[in-house]
Amino acid sequence: MKNENGVTVWFTGLPCSGKTVAADRVRDILLTEYDVNVERLDGDIVRKSLTSDLGFSKEDRNQNIMRVTFVAKLLTRNGVIVLLSFVSPYIARREQSKKEIGKMLETFVHCPLDVCEQRDVKGIYKLARDGIIKDFTGIDDPYEEPPNPDIVLHTHEETVEESARKVIAKLREEGYI
Amino acid sequence: MKNENGVTVWFTGLPCSGKTVAADRVRDILLTEYDVNVERLDGDIVRKSLTSDLGFSKEDRNQNIMRVTFVAKLLTRNGVIVLLSFVSPYIARREQSKKEIGKMLETFVHCPLDVCEQRDVKGIYKLARDGIIKDFTGIDDPYEEPPNPDIVLHTHEETVEESARKVIAKLREEGYI
Repeated sequence: MKNENGVTVWFTGLPCSGKTVAADRVRDILLTEYDVNVERLDGDIVRKSLTSDLGFSKEDRNQNIMRVTFVAKLLTRNGVIVLLSFVSPYIARREQSKKEIGKMLETFVHCPLDVCEQRDVKGIYKLARDGIIKDFTGIDDPYEEPPNPDIVLHTHEETVEESARKVIAKLREEGYI
Repeated sequence: MKNENGVTVWFTGLPCSGKTVAADRVRDILLTEYDVNVERLDGDIVRKSLTSDLGFSKEDRNQNIMRVTFVAKLLTRNGVIVLLSFVSPYIARREQSKKEIGKMLETFVHCPLDVCEQRDVKGIYKLARDGIIKDFTGIDDPYEEPPNPDIVLHTHEETVEESARKVIAKLREEGYI
């Protein structure tokens, strides 16, 4: 039976701001409490297949987002709730993706830089501070905060569960679940 | 509501064998006669977005198929009927895609080379014969016929409608529609 109630939830924020953990928890809630199609997309997932040829230069990261946007668009218009987590630091690029995908909830994962840097789960902030990684968002490349996000998560003040429930509440409010 | 009844119908065959026309007709039938989610993917569609960086070398064409396979896998597992038409000349590559996608009906669009070459809708056979395009399937690169296709279309002997109805019949037989 045809399903047209898809939407993309786009988690954007600094590296280590908590995007992945929040999106994973939203997926788990959707899969256990709702009867919906869900797909998770993030860098670790797509860089194995869809974008294995790309590096981390500004151009390559934009290419990465372009391909992911195409996939999200197709899934969204076929009734899937797409949970997408990427740093995606540029307003213009996110706006373009929103235009292409159509139904998209921009979710700003807000966490102060110093907290993100303390977490540094993969040791990448250290590499950026040491100059080994260039153009690193938050250090020597800007993160452009969303002026009008649909959802804001404060991952340094909320539990993962609280953050995830905010997203679920918004999905309910908008009639997607 | 969750939808898990997806499948990829993979149209393979020589250039100008009639893949696109058959797949387009199957899409139209599905959209008008059935209540299902349908997505069409072919070179013209994906080369504008997903694979705009790729050329037509053997390596690039395999990359092209790899990315398309990833997208088809995601759509298929989320209940979409994916109609995918690519020359896709190599058995090994198609087998790998089938393994990755899971539910896939290989549809061999069988048409003699001389008929395909007479059609030459985009003038590409001529370019290949003149040596302007290299590694062209059917001319100086092999097309490996599927040994065990799920569906065979004989587009030089059947009408488009007859070909399309074969695919619809198979989809019904397998319980996808």
